[in-house]
Amino acid sequence: MIAKSLQECPGGVTAAAGFDAGGIYCGIRKAKKDLAIVRSEVPATVAGVFTLNKTQAAPVLVDKLQLKNSARCSALVVNSGNANACTGERGMNDAWTMIDATASALKVPRAEVMVSSTGVIGQYLPIEKIVDGIGQLAGQLTRNGNIDAAEAIMTTDTYSKEAAVQFAFGATTITVGGMAKGSGMIAPNMATMLAFVTTDVAIGQPLLQKALSLSNAKSFNRISVDGDTSTNDMVLILANGRANNVPLHDDTEEFGLFCAALDYVLTKLAKMIVRDGEGATKLVEILVKGAGSEDEAAQAARAVANSNLVKTAIHGADANWGRVLAAVGYSGIDFNPDDVEIAFNDLPILKKNYEIVLDEAKAKDALSRKEITISINLNKGSHSARFWTCDLTKEYVHINASYRT
Amino acid sequence: MIAKSLQECPGGVTAAAGFDAGGIYCGIRKAKKDLAIVRSEVPATVAGVFTLNKTQAAPVLVDKLQLKNSARCSALVVNSGNANACTGERGMNDAWTMIDATASALKVPRAEVMVSSTGVIGQYLPIEKIVDGIGQLAGQLTRNGNIDAAEAIMTTDTYSKEAAVQFAFGATTITVGGMAKGSGMIAPNMATMLAFVTTDVAIGQPLLQKALSLSNAKSFNRISVDGDTSTNDMVLILANGRANNVPLHDDTEEFGLFCAALDYVLTKLAKMIVRDGEGATKLVEILVKGAGSEDEAAQAARAVANSNLVKTAIHGADANWGRVLAAVGYSGIDFNPDDVEIAFNDLPILKKNYEIVLDEAKAKDALSRKEITISINLNKGSHSARFWTCDLTKEYVHINASYRT
Repeated sequence: MIAKSLQECPGGVTAAAGFDAGGIYCGIRKAKKDLAIVRSEVPATVAGVFTLNKTQAAPVLVDKLQLKNSARCSALVVNSGNANACTGERGMNDAWTMIDATASALKVPRAEVMVSSTGVIGQYLPIEKIVDGIGQLAGQLTRNGNIDAAEAIMTTDTYSKEAAVQFAFGATTITVGGMAKGSGMIAPNMATMLAFVTTDVAIGQPLLQKALSLSNAKSFNRISVDGDTSTNDMVLILANGRANNVPLHDDTEEFGLFCAALDYVLTKLAKMIVRDGEGATKLVEILVKGAGSEDEAAQAARAVANSNLVKTAIHGADANWGRVLAAVGYSGIDFNPDDVEIAFNDLPILKKNYEIVLDEAKAKDALSRKEITISINLNKGSHSARFWTCDLTKEYVHINASYRT
Repeated sequence: MIAKSLQECPGGVTAAAGFDAGGIYCGIRKAKKDLAIVRSEVPATVAGVFTLNKTQAAPVLVDKLQLKNSARCSALVVNSGNANACTGERGMNDAWTMIDATASALKVPRAEVMVSSTGVIGQYLPIEKIVDGIGQLAGQLTRNGNIDAAEAIMTTDTYSKEAAVQFAFGATTITVGGMAKGSGMIAPNMATMLAFVTTDVAIGQPLLQKALSLSNAKSFNRISVDGDTSTNDMVLILANGRANNVPLHDDTEEFGLFCAALDYVLTKLAKMIVRDGEGATKLVEILVKGAGSEDEAAQAARAVANSNLVKTAIHGADANWGRVLAAVGYSGIDFNPDDVEIAFNDLPILKKNYEIVLDEAKAKDALSRKEITISINLNKGSHSARFWTCDLTKEYVHINASYRT
């Protein structure tokens, strides 16, 4: 569903006015593109959210410092194939070197560059190759570079992930676009997941941070592939003001529209990540209704989404609602199991007091689709939350049993 | 390791004096044994620990009532193939019917029977078959029935699980023995796991409960197969006093020996459950050292043990220590990643300040064994904890994608 006022558009991370990008192979990975740059033609307001993992990669630590010292950003540099995580002082130096090389090649201040890495943990970056690559890529940034950039940030992703949307407000058109990468180790609170969002709206830093944090809580923090959270993940947003709107103010219709656009882009990217979860064959939405609060609904939905038993049952199109109820049971929320009702897509499975209304053939059919919604009504309150996950497959095991080799 | 004073012995749940048992096929499952009874020739003191899942199966609810009303137990009746969970009022009636049938067949008071079930959730028990089975089995209980009983409680277990140990104190010999079943959905806090322990020691109910709770916290609550916790799980212990010792008192050497024996039996059964985790090929011990408290060490160990990424890497003998460190990072404990040291078996992998001392060939060899210890030293305090898990395999997915069918 897209709000009437929003319109999808092409262009991903360069859909908004005044952004260029590009992506190349610089020698980190075996063959695939592994280096991307996004540039704003004027310094943009920047905001970010970062992994809550205590073990934070060098680029995360460096970007947090950058954000503290400057509300402006002119460029992002991102590599795949190596996370620059658990690499100590040398890793920190390498992250700064990536920033310096980008600043120098693009002739922007060092304070206006953000850096990001994804890939294997615990190995040093081949920093000379990356510096050479930055020099080369800096001369090739274009308005159509979004496609290469989105490819260059992929790791085990099987396709690149882009989304963009526009809305009009008076005479101005505002665009929000972005790119993201998954695909294993995705869990709430920023798990190995990178997303870079650009917009041409004019907005101050605190309000941009607020919009990003709110939207992130309802999108990237509501997805899970395997429940692990990573050392590297971040969502960055750049707003360069090229739409020439009157800068946004809180609690206005215009800000509401911007937030809706941001929600749309982030949720679309988040669901693309889940759909592309390692080995995944199905996108599963967990909808918990009738909860006492949104937090409670989200807590229950997260437990169901992270249950290996639920995820394997869905893989096998097995209507094992007992595993769903068991997962809600250990989620830590307070509820009465007798009151719970469960449906798969719109097919009722369980009514109150454990009345089983399951039609096995229809349930099998519902669970054989590529997109499945598991609705859980706690019949306790009026709040709800959605969470997205994927099925757990043999292919997931295959991919992760030998990721490094 | 076994303490010098303890000696392993055969007999499982009937190793201790004065216990009989048996197991038969009564028609719940397709062909395998599915009904077990354990009887004490004199009323025994009973204690138990139960699942913390909010969704609790009928036998769990019934046994908690039984424990409240009586500190004595003369018999346990257990079925596999059907969990009698999420079955509402009819399920409660069925659990009481199992108790009544057992009490009547064995001529013991209804208050002195405990009931347990394991298997598929959300289906009603074939109660007539079970009642018939109880009548038949009650006449066949023997001192050698431990083997059949241990088989009859299995679900997806690939082998039955028994352990027993003896120690002498003065002129008396005290025996502690038991049986357990896994094998998927095993997680801390009593996940689909049943264990029944018997002993001939004389001990009061509060002290027996204390010993069981302490020992359980260090054994069954420190294992994980897939992180899910179940609706049904319980550990029950019966102490019938047939050793004729002076009843145990707290803080005595005798009580300490009994606790050591109980720890040994419970830990052995717990590790057997993990080793037999669905699709598992390796037993993995997570040892967190240098923590600020035992709780903190256990919390970190649990996160590592539950990480799908760690479990798949171990399956592939991939020395991906970064995933181990990332899991400690999101465990919620406070620590400095720079200080962490990691070893696989006795092979150092990571030293402080991310000094990687990994020898890939040796690490591959270490991780190719059937039993692996991952040691994580936080270098923060002096406390430690062990946790046991297994590798995550394609076979796990295969088993759980079609468990009901």
